[in-house]
Amino acid sequence: MCGIFAYLNYNVKTERRHILEVLFNGLRRLEYRGYDSSGISIDSDLSSDPDVKSRQPLVFRQEGKIESLVRSVYQEANTIDLNLEESFSVHAAIAHTRWATHGVPSPRNSHPQSSGAGNEFLVVHNGIITNYEVLKETLVRHGFTFESDTDTEVIPKLAKFVFDKTNDEQGGQAVTFSQVVLEVMRHLEGAYALIFKSSHYPNELVACKRGSPLLLGIKESTQDVNNGTPFHDDKFLTSKGHPKELFFSSDTHALVEHTKKVLVIEDDEVVHLKDGGVSILKFDHHKAEKHGRLPRPASVQRALSVLEMEVEQIKKGNYEHFMQKEIHEQPESLTTTMRGRLIRGGSCKAKSVLLGGLKDRLKTIRRSRRIVFIGCGTSYNAALAARPFMEELSGVPVTMELASDLLDREGPICREDTAVFVSQSGETADTLHALEYAQNNGALCVGITNTVSSAIARKTECGVHINAGCEIGVASTKAYTSQIVVMAMMALAIGDDTISSQARREAVVDGLFDLPNKVREVLKLDDEMKDLAKLLMDEQSLLVFGRGYNYATALEGALKVKEVSLMHSEGILAGEMKHGPLALVDETLPIIVIATHDACFSKQQSVIQQLHARKGRLIVMCSKGKASLVCPNGTCRVIEVPQVEDCLQPVINIVPLQLLAYHLTVLRGYNVDQPRNLAKSVTTQ
Amino acid sequence: MCGIFAYLNYNVKTERRHILEVLFNGLRRLEYRGYDSSGISIDSDLSSDPDVKSRQPLVFRQEGKIESLVRSVYQEANTIDLNLEESFSVHAAIAHTRWATHGVPSPRNSHPQSSGAGNEFLVVHNGIITNYEVLKETLVRHGFTFESDTDTEVIPKLAKFVFDKTNDEQGGQAVTFSQVVLEVMRHLEGAYALIFKSSHYPNELVACKRGSPLLLGIKESTQDVNNGTPFHDDKFLTSKGHPKELFFSSDTHALVEHTKKVLVIEDDEVVHLKDGGVSILKFDHHKAEKHGRLPRPASVQRALSVLEMEVEQIKKGNYEHFMQKEIHEQPESLTTTMRGRLIRGGSCKAKSVLLGGLKDRLKTIRRSRRIVFIGCGTSYNAALAARPFMEELSGVPVTMELASDLLDREGPICREDTAVFVSQSGETADTLHALEYAQNNGALCVGITNTVSSAIARKTECGVHINAGCEIGVASTKAYTSQIVVMAMMALAIGDDTISSQARREAVVDGLFDLPNKVREVLKLDDEMKDLAKLLMDEQSLLVFGRGYNYATALEGALKVKEVSLMHSEGILAGEMKHGPLALVDETLPIIVIATHDACFSKQQSVIQQLHARKGRLIVMCSKGKASLVCPNGTCRVIEVPQVEDCLQPVINIVPLQLLAYHLTVLRGYNVDQPRNLAKSVTTQ
Repeated sequence: MCGIFAYLNYNVKTERRHILEVLFNGLRRLEYRGYDSSGISIDSDLSSDPDVKSRQPLVFRQEGKIESLVRSVYQEANTIDLNLEESFSVHAAIAHTRWATHGVPSPRNSHPQSSGAGNEFLVVHNGIITNYEVLKETLVRHGFTFESDTDTEVIPKLAKFVFDKTNDEQGGQAVTFSQVVLEVMRHLEGAYALIFKSSHYPNELVACKRGSPLLLGIKESTQDVNNGTPFHDDKFLTSKGHPKELFFSSDTHALVEHTKKVLVIEDDEVVHLKDGGVSILKFDHHKAEKHGRLPRPASVQRALSVLEMEVEQIKKGNYEHFMQKEIHEQPESLTTTMRGRLIRGGSCKAKSVLLGGLKDRLKTIRRSRRIVFIGCGTSYNAALAARPFMEELSGVPVTMELASDLLDREGPICREDTAVFVSQSGETADTLHALEYAQNNGALCVGITNTVSSAIARKTECGVHINAGCEIGVASTKAYTSQIVVMAMMALAIGDDTISSQARREAVVDGLFDLPNKVREVLKLDDEMKDLAKLLMDEQSLLVFGRGYNYATALEGALKVKEVSLMHSEGILAGEMKHGPLALVDETLPIIVIATHDACFSKQQSVIQQLHARKGRLIVMCSKGKASLVCPNGTCRVIEVPQVEDCLQPVINIVPLQLLAYHLTVLRGYNVDQPRNLAKSVTTQ
Repeated sequence: MCGIFAYLNYNVKTERRHILEVLFNGLRRLEYRGYDSSGISIDSDLSSDPDVKSRQPLVFRQEGKIESLVRSVYQEANTIDLNLEESFSVHAAIAHTRWATHGVPSPRNSHPQSSGAGNEFLVVHNGIITNYEVLKETLVRHGFTFESDTDTEVIPKLAKFVFDKTNDEQGGQAVTFSQVVLEVMRHLEGAYALIFKSSHYPNELVACKRGSPLLLGIKESTQDVNNGTPFHDDKFLTSKGHPKELFFSSDTHALVEHTKKVLVIEDDEVVHLKDGGVSILKFDHHKAEKHGRLPRPASVQRALSVLEMEVEQIKKGNYEHFMQKEIHEQPESLTTTMRGRLIRGGSCKAKSVLLGGLKDRLKTIRRSRRIVFIGCGTSYNAALAARPFMEELSGVPVTMELASDLLDREGPICREDTAVFVSQSGETADTLHALEYAQNNGALCVGITNTVSSAIARKTECGVHINAGCEIGVASTKAYTSQIVVMAMMALAIGDDTISSQARREAVVDGLFDLPNKVREVLKLDDEMKDLAKLLMDEQSLLVFGRGYNYATALEGALKVKEVSLMHSEGILAGEMKHGPLALVDETLPIIVIATHDACFSKQQSVIQQLHARKGRLIVMCSKGKASLVCPNGTCRVIEVPQVEDCLQPVINIVPLQLLAYHLTVLRGYNVDQPRNLAKSVTTQ
């Protein structure tokens, strides 16, 4: 989804060319989130016109890739004779990658959106303003004309409207930038993270958010600020004159190369950067309503946190694509996921797991009426993969909910339920809304995310981090396998008090210890999957059949192929085959059947026989050495994978399908890491 | 799935040609179940060879449609000079339509399967023998050679083995036909309905079943047997000499034109037709094991039931296809479904529903921990459509289970759960097994079927018949809408005790009264959907997006298109669009978005905007008069449907998609009523 980036240098001499490069690089780091256009704003040269006292903000916007923005900026700078070598001791710049929601991708729909001629107010926005049509009508009545089809354009225009009106009433510079923004916020409905830049407030930036994520990164030229130093209003960060660089970003990826000191901005906070200071105000909707216009809310005290990620994590290393890198680093990411959480047991100590974030809640979870797994896309599939084992060990029925469907239905959730929210980014809008819904209904809310200090991690009562490391490919791979492993560990922890399942639990703990090795083994299928991809690259459709533990594998494998290789693939429960999908089977349609060894194996054999009887074009995934059982006459293609404990098998089985999706995409010539139309973390509903 | 038919005339003079026509006609009535080959067996002329005392059974089998069997039978009869005019006062004939599970469709894999040369034992079979490989090995060791790839062939060979062995040991005719069959049953595992014919027992038939359905129809030449007359062993049905015709069939469709007096055979019953008498024996697995070989179980007393269907129901009338007829008769079928169940209310009486089959259980259901909806294919989709309303009125969380997945996972079901089993035929194998599973776990089991005296209707503790009339098209249409209406009525009954929802309930009751009229209205879109089908007929793929009440409509609409028109269509929750499927969207892929007016409408508008932003090729279904809200610039195709109460809207919305699937199929030149590879009622797992 849309990415926001801003850069403000204070008492750090910086050339315009460098400012541009910082912005472009920031946008490149946000690329992985998914986008279809981008834009920036920097200040112009000082005008030769004596009437114009300050610099005018320049806006550059372009459809397509960031590199096309970069080219067009330098071209236009050349045309207007912009001095790239001019040096600023203080300068405020904003940048944006757009993922189209309202209006097709085009320069005029890209951000920054403007208040109109002169760019008095400029805004970059991540989220959706749901009441923009009403606001637009009002503004049009007040004489504003709109250029874009976006919901965003109302925001800078509203800011100008507020600014002009207040100045008319109060005269002069009585109103501050943050007051304007607070007044604008009072009118906005929906979800947003916003950064404002204005010609009326040069060298200042104001950011605010509700729903969508936003971070502030702080880099002091002399690093004398300690971790976790509390900071307060303008007094924050030594003297105002102290040289520093400040960054806003939608996520940590664009910050980590500059600084590891970040502030996670909370909903309804307004962050004002001015004169080298950072003031944080809290927007209070009720107060705003009551006290009328231009509220002056109290400032807020907050602590910085320190990023644990390294710059290497967000680079491709020796791989051609992030997706490829992330598929191949799964042995390591799974090891990190399990580190310190598996207990090897000993003479008088049972093998078990320890999940610090959950251990005080296990009793409550065991007594639940239901465990409700809630997620979207790949995270949902991971929960589906973990479901049978969770049911087995907890004895509690596990209900699956696609987050948006739960919200659409307003399905019953109650105090006796344990609701488990699964999201890689921890910012997925639907999952986040479902979390609020479940909390309002009194359920115990557990979070499973890959992002420390993400909204879901902060808002749930307890949870587990999957520690898979940064995932940059839009198609989730290593997060999926780590999510399954975390939920398997969670099942082990919940079932820890049951004697009858102890042998089973210990076997699974052993299986977990060995899992990274088995994943290393299955990754050797890379070339084989590339060959298969060559065979399938011109197909229009693909079906994937699975059941039991690997129903999720079928859905997830098909989703991978669908989202990156743009082939219409569909994952289908094998037991449903005869209730419709079998009609599609003929000699041409390729069908992948997952039939590794478990309790459902004989049923899958029967499925394979029936597909054979209809001359289906089969590709069968089976356990190593079992090819003759799934393909007696050698007529179908077989993928042999190492066998592990049945409940962990989905972790192994997805890997060849991830590789297949990857190679299909490369062969078909599509963008692996930023598939068409998709965003990494879906932060709007 | 496979269809079984048999005809035995006793003291009713019948020419061979007539016997053949009865068999062929029986098979034609079973066609709708789905099949890919067929076969029959009748007796030969008396042999001129004096060594051969009795007539040899002749076997005719053919791949493909029944008409190709008919042609080949008459051709071969001509070749071997079979006298078609020969008249029999008693004759036993069997017939079969096969739906391939083990082995490709071919004459040698068709039924009847034979014990070998001379056709000493012949068997027709519906179901799957799971231990056939073991039995085959044993029989091969005893010198039998196998000709087919079927699981069935072990049965006649086992019968011959048993017969030969017993005769060696006991000599002469000591062993009866039913004893042979009982002994064979002792070795069979899996699901089956079987009919045996043997040259050793001329003019006799033995049938037995476990799991798969089987009916006996009885037509007395003078109709002096009263309804429900109990009958017992050989004494049943007046004197043995009384002229009669007896029929076995997998379902009522092949019986109703001959007689309405039927016996629904229960699991483990063995029905022996001999000398004009019907004896019913009960196979007891324990007893059989204990007493060793050749048990002589007690005979069983059973009552006949009377079919309520009419022959017209199973004919096409003025329509070209059954599916077309069934789509268009939905106003009538829905009326029948609701007849006598809606209470119109009055001055001091609230509008409500009365479901006789449920009313004693409503209190228990209201107190359930969960309501679990269990079904396969279309029946599952119907339950999904009814889910939000059930949750709303009951306040109880509704869990959705695909029957096969519940069994694969062995998911927790317990005494506090109410499990609702939905199946048109009432014989769906997976649903039936899930029912047994839920019963063993103590849940209250409720059945919703279209077939009185079906296995699910008989085995559930309470339930509701949908009374939609015979559905013959393999793709379910009118049963789907009637199932939704029944579940909506069930929700009304469960919520009947809540004051706060009374206004809502009354509005829905009003909506139900008016529903047949609204369906009549939406059926007028027939031509429009035909035009749309012309536009889409050459496409490879189709996506259908829905949410809320109409998530099910998206799944079901896509399923219809998939199963009859053989186009790869996929139903997708609109809320999941951004989590993967959006990658597929471009200018060419057709996408149907269901966006009729309800609480999710604004979210669907946003989905439509995002699809527009990506230049998606949209077909939007909206409420009448709302086209401008879903397609502001007139660039997409709109289907306007009448608006009804939100929870009943799925009944309306599915109709245009049924019509679309129908017309697509006709235009693409596929078989509407018997789609490739599919069976009407899936009676094997």
